[in-house]
Amino acid sequence: MADAAAPLMTRLAANTKVGYSFEREFYCSDEVFAADMEQVVGRKWTMAGHVDRVRQRGDYFLFKIGDEQIIILRENETSVRAYFNVCRHRGSLLCTEDSGHKTRLTCPYHAWTYGLDGALVAARLMPEDFAKQDNGLLACHVRVFFGLIFINLSVGEPDDFDATFGDLAPFLDFHGLEDAKIAHMASYPTTANWKLVVENFIECYHCQPAHPEFCSLHPPEALIACGAGPSSGPAEAVAAYQPVLEAWEAHAAALGRPIGTVDDGPESSHLRLLIQRTLRDGFETETEDGTAASSLMGKRLGWDQGRMHLSFTPVSHIVADNDFAILFFFTPRGPMATDVDLIWLVDGKAGDYDVGKMIWAWDATTKQDKVITEHNQAGILSSRYRPGRYSDQERRVITFQQWYLRQFGLVRAD
Amino acid sequence: MADAAAPLMTRLAANTKVGYSFEREFYCSDEVFAADMEQVVGRKWTMAGHVDRVRQRGDYFLFKIGDEQIIILRENETSVRAYFNVCRHRGSLLCTEDSGHKTRLTCPYHAWTYGLDGALVAARLMPEDFAKQDNGLLACHVRVFFGLIFINLSVGEPDDFDATFGDLAPFLDFHGLEDAKIAHMASYPTTANWKLVVENFIECYHCQPAHPEFCSLHPPEALIACGAGPSSGPAEAVAAYQPVLEAWEAHAAALGRPIGTVDDGPESSHLRLLIQRTLRDGFETETEDGTAASSLMGKRLGWDQGRMHLSFTPVSHIVADNDFAILFFFTPRGPMATDVDLIWLVDGKAGDYDVGKMIWAWDATTKQDKVITEHNQAGILSSRYRPGRYSDQERRVITFQQWYLRQFGLVRAD
Amino acid sequence: MADAAAPLMTRLAANTKVGYSFEREFYCSDEVFAADMEQVVGRKWTMAGHVDRVRQRGDYFLFKIGDEQIIILRENETSVRAYFNVCRHRGSLLCTEDSGHKTRLTCPYHAWTYGLDGALVAARLMPEDFAKQDNGLLACHVRVFFGLIFINLSVGEPDDFDATFGDLAPFLDFHGLEDAKIAHMASYPTTANWKLVVENFIECYHCQPAHPEFCSLHPPEALIACGAGPSSGPAEAVAAYQPVLEAWEAHAAALGRPIGTVDDGPESSHLRLLIQRTLRDGFETETEDGTAASSLMGKRLGWDQGRMHLSFTPVSHIVADNDFAILFFFTPRGPMATDVDLIWLVDGKAGDYDVGKMIWAWDATTKQDKVITEHNQAGILSSRYRPGRYSDQERRVITFQQWYLRQFGLVRAD
Repeated sequence: MADAAAPLMTRLAANTKVGYSFEREFYCSDEVFAADMEQVVGRKWTMAGHVDRVRQRGDYFLFKIGDEQIIILRENETSVRAYFNVCRHRGSLLCTEDSGHKTRLTCPYHAWTYGLDGALVAARLMPEDFAKQDNGLLACHVRVFFGLIFINLSVGEPDDFDATFGDLAPFLDFHGLEDAKIAHMASYPTTANWKLVVENFIECYHCQPAHPEFCSLHPPEALIACGAGPSSGPAEAVAAYQPVLEAWEAHAAALGRPIGTVDDGPESSHLRLLIQRTLRDGFETETEDGTAASSLMGKRLGWDQGRMHLSFTPVSHIVADNDFAILFFFTPRGPMATDVDLIWLVDGKAGDYDVGKMIWAWDATTKQDKVITEHNQAGILSSRYRPGRYSDQERRVITFQQWYLRQFGLVRAD
Repeated sequence: MADAAAPLMTRLAANTKVGYSFEREFYCSDEVFAADMEQVVGRKWTMAGHVDRVRQRGDYFLFKIGDEQIIILRENETSVRAYFNVCRHRGSLLCTEDSGHKTRLTCPYHAWTYGLDGALVAARLMPEDFAKQDNGLLACHVRVFFGLIFINLSVGEPDDFDATFGDLAPFLDFHGLEDAKIAHMASYPTTANWKLVVENFIECYHCQPAHPEFCSLHPPEALIACGAGPSSGPAEAVAAYQPVLEAWEAHAAALGRPIGTVDDGPESSHLRLLIQRTLRDGFETETEDGTAASSLMGKRLGWDQGRMHLSFTPVSHIVADNDFAILFFFTPRGPMATDVDLIWLVDGKAGDYDVGKMIWAWDATTKQDKVITEHNQAGILSSRYRPGRYSDQERRVITFQQWYLRQFGLVRAD
Repeated sequence: MADAAAPLMTRLAANTKVGYSFEREFYCSDEVFAADMEQVVGRKWTMAGHVDRVRQRGDYFLFKIGDEQIIILRENETSVRAYFNVCRHRGSLLCTEDSGHKTRLTCPYHAWTYGLDGALVAARLMPEDFAKQDNGLLACHVRVFFGLIFINLSVGEPDDFDATFGDLAPFLDFHGLEDAKIAHMASYPTTANWKLVVENFIECYHCQPAHPEFCSLHPPEALIACGAGPSSGPAEAVAAYQPVLEAWEAHAAALGRPIGTVDDGPESSHLRLLIQRTLRDGFETETEDGTAASSLMGKRLGWDQGRMHLSFTPVSHIVADNDFAILFFFTPRGPMATDVDLIWLVDGKAGDYDVGKMIWAWDATTKQDKVITEHNQAGILSSRYRPGRYSDQERRVITFQQWYLRQFGLVRAD
């Protein structure tokens, strides 16, 4: 597949330039989508859920990505496993519900039965030379990191997880994600290519026209300077905002927050991003009136008016406020179909929290993003779509496209 | 695309003969449909609406054809414009409703804003070397002709409009189409290739079996002789009807009607057709009891029992009675999907008109045509479909197929 | 098509081994499906219905298979005919309802009219050299055999029917199928390749995990030994069950039942199968409590606690109990779409029969099979599906796959 798509990708890459949006086929071709799954999404560590979905031994949920269904399952107190949802006998799905609880994995077709460790433990009436030990479930690479579950679809050895994400530990630890619990989950399936969903999320040029709720929570100068990451805005705006940011960092550090940024470039493996900054004056968190929706989360010493945006990959993000965090999953399902799922987390010991208040901003914002991204996809299908020029506030999109092409060994013309 | 389809089209054309229906692939292949859009439909002037839909400055409606969406918009009192519904920034749709009113065209994504003249007037935070004047909306060729709005998707210069249609001016002027107003609009989306929809409309061999309402309004001998145009019926039937036609023409001319016919052949650019003839004795118009549904339309001096059928192209037609006119739009949307839309017009000064009475004949007839055309498409998908022989009453279909093949530089075997 | 698919089929066949399930593409590829229709399903005699659907002259029903619609019609008391549902004029469907009654077949489009013998009897206004006798309906091979209607889509001469199925006459005669009447019909459209539907039906390895109702009616040792035919189970189980089977055969023969088995191998043309055996002790028929749902069927002298399973082809089956029989139709419609239809028959003279009681077992079982087959299809789409090892109870599936490949002139590696 990768080889088959190579001439197409090369031609497409040659046709556009740095600073301009991609050619149409990048966003709608079956061939490009297959190549994306094989050479980009399929080779990266991708956030798939939170351990609160698999608290008890035998708890599982399905993570559906491309044509794959991954069973994510708690094997025991210390181990979470991931398996392809395919029986080794005749290929039936093993788990047919989106989540549930199993003591063993018994195929609903012929009752081949696997342990929670994936080993085949029962298969009736098989030929004498059949080897159960060669017929365990096919495992998917999986790693739990501060309560976040990551999978990697690679057939061979994937990028080393700790080398890739280890330096993020202090930030995740501070936010108490490991001990968090799920307050709410919601799905916003989007009729658009996954790259359009990503490009929407990593620029804030559209925030002002499209997201009134979101903008009501943030200082306009912050959105322009670094709404989509440390280097996402115009250089002058970044410089102007720097003193404000530094003042807040000093304040936040005093309340326990680790300070630092991550701003991976096109040559990085996962294009990570980390930015922490303050909310609009008077706002403690991202609620309509700025007051708390839950109790203080993680290792905080007090309310610091800050928020963190952390991207593990272009399809896996966290936004963390003082009292809740949101996990964003942008999961490719087809050339013009992307699952957009959000999980709102609160502190594991939070008692009385207000879900409606907590989801107010990002439920509205994600519904708006679904609409604008679908309109973007629809317009791109016209024969008269032409790659257009990016603004100074969309610099992160340019970086994303450079990174994307590098996964195919390609660069764009300057 | 055109070049890619050439061998297929040549092979298909070689396999059938004049006087026989087309090979199956002409009616269902993705490749043929793409070639049709590029070399046939996409190069012709196509009727897209009536000016009554865009009376006020800023009024617009969308005309969807193939994968394109065209914004048809009133720029000012004297100008109607057409633009591809694609923002020059990242390709989003600009207009997301089927019709509406705009003072400016602001993209819902990043708020790039265009004037009604298509010029880009606002785009925040763009690089210094960005030239707004190079980023206006991409225009679609458009022409308003006696109140009828025509578009042409050609990339380059299309056929000269006046050279193509100028001689029709007296007929359109007589019917008062420019000052008409819309009484009713209806849609009949049809699961069939556009050529099947056209072939259905340009022959009257099926009228007697399929259209009781329609047949109740017309002299049977007229339907056989010229139900689908001056030369659409058997030669003897045409000759036999000629004296009746001439007698009526003298009567109608005395009441102000311009007399004449158009009967373009396969070598013409748009395969135009114009025929005027009388209704069944005692009928003033195409209503169930033959009495008027509205007041006399256009420059008529009195009721003349006549009706006009005018085809601008195989997908753009008008039927005009004494008191109302119907616009027919057969718009290709996919290999087996065609939008069939009708607009009923009445005189601009008509007061009390009866919509139910007016649409009685053609609402029923179009619903019947939808059903029979869909059954035609379904049957053609069988491996045992064979091109069949045309009757003497389907001569216009033969002409259409010859014209169609000439768009690809092809002819059929005799 | 056959030639086009040949390299793919050869590659796929080479990739798997006897005793293992097929490669993924066999179950989902458009190309394989087209080859299946042309070289396998399209060349076999396929059961399409029962004469009770066409009792009166002019009664018809449509049998839809692949992209074809076959009109199955009673021409007269002694003749049932089958025609492709395509008008010879412009290809419209002739019959647009799934079943009905016609004195003549008149096309709803232009009224070309055919006699019940398929001859074109009326076509208005055709050119002088048009020959009606050359424009009759295209016939489909059809044969009625003991009340069962078979069609064959072959363009040329198909396999001789009597040479293929003649030896089954005594069994069909005994069951009284010719004079039977329809008690109930039901449809279970299944989102899976037809081969998955067949493979499900011809093994009983899944009976115990998946079909509690079915298993309650049968001796467990019979299901293991010969649940899917004489040689479908492990050799030891077959041997152990043999004395039980023989004892019942003696008992049944005394009550008039012809005894015998059919167990066609991979080299056969239609892979027929016939097995007769007893139900669970105390059961007279396949109802929940084992008591009769209707009166004794056919030429039986008394209740013999037996049942027959007869496969004409992998897609055409009968299960016959003492008081009712079930026809199974597994009809390919698309690469991942199969129509599963059942007809329950009772004796033609049966008076008071209980439909709910009669359908209890196989309505539940077929609904279960639909679910497990669809889950099988879904799992096979994963990139990590691997051909898996068959159990000793799935020997008939191995035979089916060998037979299937032989239709393409291929064999699998041992």
